[in-house]
Amino acid sequence: MNEAALTLEGWYALHDFRSLNWTAWTAADDEERAVALEELHAFMQEWGPVEEAKEGSTAVYSIVGQKADFVMMFLRESLEALNQLETAFNKIAFAQYTTKSYSYVSIVELSNYAAGGSAGDGSDPMQNPHVAARLKPVLPQTKHICFYPMNKKRELADNWYMLDMEKRRELMYSHGLIGRGYAGKVKQIITGSVGFDDWEWGVTLFADDALQFKKLVYEMRFDEVSARYGEFGPFYVGNLLTPDTFEELLKL
Amino acid sequence: MNEAALTLEGWYALHDFRSLNWTAWTAADDEERAVALEELHAFMQEWGPVEEAKEGSTAVYSIVGQKADFVMMFLRESLEALNQLETAFNKIAFAQYTTKSYSYVSIVELSNYAAGGSAGDGSDPMQNPHVAARLKPVLPQTKHICFYPMNKKRELADNWYMLDMEKRRELMYSHGLIGRGYAGKVKQIITGSVGFDDWEWGVTLFADDALQFKKLVYEMRFDEVSARYGEFGPFYVGNLLTPDTFEELLKL
Amino acid sequence: MNEAALTLEGWYALHDFRSLNWTAWTAADDEERAVALEELHAFMQEWGPVEEAKEGSTAVYSIVGQKADFVMMFLRESLEALNQLETAFNKIAFAQYTTKSYSYVSIVELSNYAAGGSAGDGSDPMQNPHVAARLKPVLPQTKHICFYPMNKKRELADNWYMLDMEKRRELMYSHGLIGRGYAGKVKQIITGSVGFDDWEWGVTLFADDALQFKKLVYEMRFDEVSARYGEFGPFYVGNLLTPDTFEELLKL
Amino acid sequence: MNEAALTLEGWYALHDFRSLNWTAWTAADDEERAVALEELHAFMQEWGPVEEAKEGSTAVYSIVGQKADFVMMFLRESLEALNQLETAFNKIAFAQYTTKSYSYVSIVELSNYAAGGSAGDGSDPMQNPHVAARLKPVLPQTKHICFYPMNKKRELADNWYMLDMEKRRELMYSHGLIGRGYAGKVKQIITGSVGFDDWEWGVTLFADDALQFKKLVYEMRFDEVSARYGEFGPFYVGNLLTPDTFEELLKL
Amino acid sequence: MNEAALTLEGWYALHDFRSLNWTAWTAADDEERAVALEELHAFMQEWGPVEEAKEGSTAVYSIVGQKADFVMMFLRESLEALNQLETAFNKIAFAQYTTKSYSYVSIVELSNYAAGGSAGDGSDPMQNPHVAARLKPVLPQTKHICFYPMNKKRELADNWYMLDMEKRRELMYSHGLIGRGYAGKVKQIITGSVGFDDWEWGVTLFADDALQFKKLVYEMRFDEVSARYGEFGPFYVGNLLTPDTFEELLKL
Repeated sequence: MNEAALTLEGWYALHDFRSLNWTAWTAADDEERAVALEELHAFMQEWGPVEEAKEGSTAVYSIVGQKADFVMMFLRESLEALNQLETAFNKIAFAQYTTKSYSYVSIVELSNYAAGGSAGDGSDPMQNPHVAARLKPVLPQTKHICFYPMNKKRELADNWYMLDMEKRRELMYSHGLIGRGYAGKVKQIITGSVGFDDWEWGVTLFADDALQFKKLVYEMRFDEVSARYGEFGPFYVGNLLTPDTFEELLKL
Repeated sequence: MNEAALTLEGWYALHDFRSLNWTAWTAADDEERAVALEELHAFMQEWGPVEEAKEGSTAVYSIVGQKADFVMMFLRESLEALNQLETAFNKIAFAQYTTKSYSYVSIVELSNYAAGGSAGDGSDPMQNPHVAARLKPVLPQTKHICFYPMNKKRELADNWYMLDMEKRRELMYSHGLIGRGYAGKVKQIITGSVGFDDWEWGVTLFADDALQFKKLVYEMRFDEVSARYGEFGPFYVGNLLTPDTFEELLKL
Repeated sequence: MNEAALTLEGWYALHDFRSLNWTAWTAADDEERAVALEELHAFMQEWGPVEEAKEGSTAVYSIVGQKADFVMMFLRESLEALNQLETAFNKIAFAQYTTKSYSYVSIVELSNYAAGGSAGDGSDPMQNPHVAARLKPVLPQTKHICFYPMNKKRELADNWYMLDMEKRRELMYSHGLIGRGYAGKVKQIITGSVGFDDWEWGVTLFADDALQFKKLVYEMRFDEVSARYGEFGPFYVGNLLTPDTFEELLKL
Repeated sequence: MNEAALTLEGWYALHDFRSLNWTAWTAADDEERAVALEELHAFMQEWGPVEEAKEGSTAVYSIVGQKADFVMMFLRESLEALNQLETAFNKIAFAQYTTKSYSYVSIVELSNYAAGGSAGDGSDPMQNPHVAARLKPVLPQTKHICFYPMNKKRELADNWYMLDMEKRRELMYSHGLIGRGYAGKVKQIITGSVGFDDWEWGVTLFADDALQFKKLVYEMRFDEVSARYGEFGPFYVGNLLTPDTFEELLKL
Repeated sequence: MNEAALTLEGWYALHDFRSLNWTAWTAADDEERAVALEELHAFMQEWGPVEEAKEGSTAVYSIVGQKADFVMMFLRESLEALNQLETAFNKIAFAQYTTKSYSYVSIVELSNYAAGGSAGDGSDPMQNPHVAARLKPVLPQTKHICFYPMNKKRELADNWYMLDMEKRRELMYSHGLIGRGYAGKVKQIITGSVGFDDWEWGVTLFADDALQFKKLVYEMRFDEVSARYGEFGPFYVGNLLTPDTFEELLKL
């Protein structure tokens, strides 16, 4: 049985990073800003019912540094739903004060290496509530977020995809142990993006103590899976935006 | 006989990715938008007769994420025809509300590794209706599209072009088997772009279930052809735009 | 005798790729466009006498895809002459409706590997009319153009510049045989750019059948010179712009 | 005990590189510029109390060359504090005359390889005033600054993360000796950015003689740690901006 | 004695590449252009006294191709002096018609491999007038300039910094012989940029015959120092701008 068939997929994911056009925002008059904020508020209001209906989950974080000002992370049932969200956002007045910074399209996945990922007994794994909860997760409202995309290397002697399944399973097992050492400190959502975006996976980490991101990623870097086979894209780190702190961010 | 001579080519292809300038679009007044939509409609109306005359085929999909808002994929008889299409688009009012995102120039091809690609009996393969249908395909109207350009690697010990023909044929045969496993789920159009654009091939996939893109591309990644020799460019994924959904996308 | 000394050089070359700013062009009024076209026409009129005086040659092609809208390829006696041309273009009204896309600075060369390149008998090779015609070529008015810059690799075991002269001569000889197989179909102008631009050579191909570009470049890719030692930059492909088709391209 | 656990972290760091929009600045009228300077002054005034309360430290330097016009380096207790600083800056009138150039998010660290970094006796290293002073440093007001991000390589035989701890400790020890040879000439602040930004570390050097940056970095490049395992990002070098020299920089 | 200590440094260097915003320049009225030219003239007038006082040297060249329109190469006593020059330029009216293209920060150096670079007898090499003239050179007014930045490679088996001093000295000696073969044809100024900019060295070549740049750089490419260990950045080539030719360039 091949690897693709063993992987389980859940909700589609869109990470939508945006920057404020501060010059336009500060040049707008009070009424223009009020209209923009009202439309933003209305746009965000639509996320609650989706969350309650268990048809998706959403998180909003500010981003530290110049790469972006904030990210909206959307989990939804389909690519159409994600597309409608970005289009809806693009049409509101607030969006006209923002610019695109980065985006990532992927799908929540549980790989065949993970315990529970492959029941092997013919039962539908989505009937397993533990598995279902991981494939269609409620995004936690931790204080901090960390996102980065990654590949497994295919470089001469360091070629993950030329290793046999047994070797990869072993390597992933010890790799997974490191992650488990951060249980309760860092929640990790893995999304697959082969065929959807420029890297093979997206990793989204949630923690109340941002330092744990550094400790986790650094510890993993010495593990053979990352050390020999990991290729990493840009890293984004940020702070939770509640309705209040988002308003604060935008208030002049 | 050399490889270039064994490859069969059909229609030229232009993938034209565009983004909406939402700020200009939302700032336009109703009449300006009506004129723009009318000109877009007229531009798209010209594709039907071409399709009916079997002189080309066209598909339009939205793109998920910030890379683009939509792609127009054109298959036509010549580079001149493709060039006229992009110039005609650039002149309509609607185009002034868009920006360029990415484009790809290539030509539909059947490689000598493919069954039926080289008859070897001196007959004109274009007289074979199966071959002709693959070289001048009618683009399917599946719910989803996936596009990515790729190279075969030439990196020290992993050099595709230094392998002998027999070895390449073997590798491509087993590679092809994976694709055939997705028959009925994913339709694949290979376009060659050596001498035309920055990568050696473009791959365009069509499916009603977008998840099959991920499963196909991921399964292939473990195959030696991709694992050792594949180099991949940016990936674009999107949703079918019918006249109705395109109108919906643009409606404020 | 070293390689640099054995190479023969002719006219300097500037490939000047430009894009139309279609929004500005379509927003201009008829009179503004008429003035712009008149100045463009006057600018192009100056090329004829240069061509007749055998002091240079010029070609103009549209470019397919979003990389550029057209390229002006100039061959002239000196870098000063090329510089004056681009400055003169920048000053005309038409240029204000264009943006820079890409450019390449190089010089027509015949390498020491080419037959006739090194007479070896002390005679001045520029007195050889065959050699002179290749170093100061009249650019053909074929239907299509293809341009790409390239390097010879210097990567560990695949290092062209660490091969001895005899080995390089052998490799280039068989490489040249492929090119000769396209005689009458593809005309090839090699320009050297070491010390002038970011790649070591520019390759400009001319053909009436664009498919021959693909066949030639693909066939060469299996030759050891390209397979092990070739590094390729962006590829540009386009269609001949006659005064009529250029006018057509710009007409609204 | 793993490496992440042995590293000590102090203040979070944001290097915020900005460029002046000189055309907007010179086009503004005297009153607009006066307001902008006043708001900049007020923004900078808030740094003093933070420094006095030992809750952070700040430095401002001009940058030589086109990469940026100045950098604000902020050390603060949390990512939230850094985020508030950049947002506050973005809102002032002066910021509307600047554009983003580059930024870097990291945290001051003492690695386990450094003497004193790991007490090993169970005592809290932050109680060690020497350690605390290095983790929460007062930024020196030297005449010059140098900043660059870097990675440790993971490339086939040159893979830092596959070396055992003993080997890495040995290599870092001799590497550290070079740095110590510049004691009194160059002050070095290492910030870790694994999980926070695109490189693994940021290096910020301070010196009164800018030539010492070159001598230090060049001498280190021959050390095995840099020679085999160092990967370097962009380098920024600049001159101290005091209130007077900053005013001078902006005065027309 | 380490390498850094053996290298001699002279004047700091700033290569400041700029492009004309031709649309703004041609749209300006005669008086605006006159003011801009006057301020440019005044800015350039200040270079003469510096040159006479032997406190620096300056050169201005146009650049062929789209990378830039001209470069100002400044040699001065300090980074502060260079910074003041770019700031002064940014403030004049003429600068508002230009955009930044590229810049390079470095310092004139004589390496320990060069004859005369290390006296070894304890005498101050700056007292040697030959050495002083090379470290604080008067920039020649040749017809052409060529600039490129470069690194020495650190790639697995091709690692310059892991070679012992004796081997490097041998390689640099034969490398130097090639340069000396161009004496009287090409003047070469090497500037070190480790710790100052993104590459390790800048190479600025001056010649009356631009073809000599190509011959020199190409001949060197077969030398082991370049062939195995050289990594090259972008190349810029241009023509001398005298007050007259600069005025000509800008005249409409």
